[in-house]
Amino acid sequence: MSTKALAKGSSAPGPVPEGTIRLYSMRFCPFAQRARLVLEAKKIKCEIVNVNLMNKPDWFLQKNPLGMVPTLETCKNELVYDSPIVCEFLDDIYPANRLLPTDPYEKAKQKMLLEQFSKVMGYMYRIPVEKRKSMDTSKLEEELQVQLSKFEQKLADLKTCFFGGDSVTMIDYWLWPWFERMEALGFNKVLEQMQRLKRWMQLMQQDAVTKASGFSTDIYREFYEMYFQHNPEACDYHL
Amino acid sequence: MSTKALAKGSSAPGPVPEGTIRLYSMRFCPFAQRARLVLEAKKIKCEIVNVNLMNKPDWFLQKNPLGMVPTLETCKNELVYDSPIVCEFLDDIYPANRLLPTDPYEKAKQKMLLEQFSKVMGYMYRIPVEKRKSMDTSKLEEELQVQLSKFEQKLADLKTCFFGGDSVTMIDYWLWPWFERMEALGFNKVLEQMQRLKRWMQLMQQDAVTKASGFSTDIYREFYEMYFQHNPEACDYHL
Repeated sequence: MSTKALAKGSSAPGPVPEGTIRLYSMRFCPFAQRARLVLEAKKIKCEIVNVNLMNKPDWFLQKNPLGMVPTLETCKNELVYDSPIVCEFLDDIYPANRLLPTDPYEKAKQKMLLEQFSKVMGYMYRIPVEKRKSMDTSKLEEELQVQLSKFEQKLADLKTCFFGGDSVTMIDYWLWPWFERMEALGFNKVLEQMQRLKRWMQLMQQDAVTKASGFSTDIYREFYEMYFQHNPEACDYHL
Repeated sequence: MSTKALAKGSSAPGPVPEGTIRLYSMRFCPFAQRARLVLEAKKIKCEIVNVNLMNKPDWFLQKNPLGMVPTLETCKNELVYDSPIVCEFLDDIYPANRLLPTDPYEKAKQKMLLEQFSKVMGYMYRIPVEKRKSMDTSKLEEELQVQLSKFEQKLADLKTCFFGGDSVTMIDYWLWPWFERMEALGFNKVLEQMQRLKRWMQLMQQDAVTKASGFSTDIYREFYEMYFQHNPEACDYHL
């Protein structure tokens, strides 16, 4: 997590050493954080290579033509991308401490919830972008609230502390990166009445795994300031 | 597949009998067809309940608030939706004749290809809609061609007949419904130079499972004519 991002013109890293795995990441990317949470939770020995997504190296685009993080590379030159696919692949190849349920219905439920969350993610990107253009985002914020209230209701229906039961499982790590950024993105008010979600956030904040993977609200706030200005040094902020 | 679609005002079907499973479907929906292909390939005893998606029954929206097909219901009142999740769930609970690879990397590759296919699906919906509004779709068709050529290239790289090897696996069934509709939607020209994809389509057309699940180009053409006119009887066409 703590190395500077490689940008266009950088040398490609060598082959992935036997017995380890490499994650191409960006320190502030919520999708990449999902993979880092899984790596941390499962104590997987891995190398993190940060990539400058605003100025991508050619060698990175050769590995993943979509140019997105997380991208995983194994010592057998296998390349895996798209965050839920990366997380499930890690859970499969390092089966100790399973994060995804093995029960088919429990697993399906986590994936359905993830699918539903894509709407929340959409608003959380769009609202800050429109706000910076001084557009009125109050309607979008109401819609975000409606979407988030489904997750509040989910916790009420489940009567558990976490989204997959009484301990942290994959679905919690899939959702967490966006909640960690809520305050920095100015969404505190949207969550105001959602007691169960706020309790879940408190518990997640105390989790040793999330602590190791994230940043403070102040750091996210500064990052987003640079990011929305398209500053190519945003990814290395606070290093 | 052959029963009329239930619409708003219809009675809800009773509980799912022990030892069977129920699929809420729409005869011409490509997403639902994915699930029907898996049910057929695995010879799963199931009941198909067709739903009128242009005039949805309230009881259906209670089962699945998103109101989409495929939705699966088990005799334990479990509800599963979103087509890849439904397909994987069926493959999990009926493990004979596995369609998804159990090897983690092979499975991840199928899911990455599916993810990539979402772009193709987008164009295949958007182009006919814009054509009906007499808009110029030539640029979109070029973009569709670029996206499809990645699948042509994939088969060239794999050197196999199908997308998961030399026999039909899950990924082929995930992609097939859109290819089956290509001619009816007027995309023949886009595929003209793609010899490997056309060969794959020929092989898929000969597959007993796809034969049992699909319709002729003429029928799809008539269906789409009604569908794009928002005719609520489109789903029962040719019954």
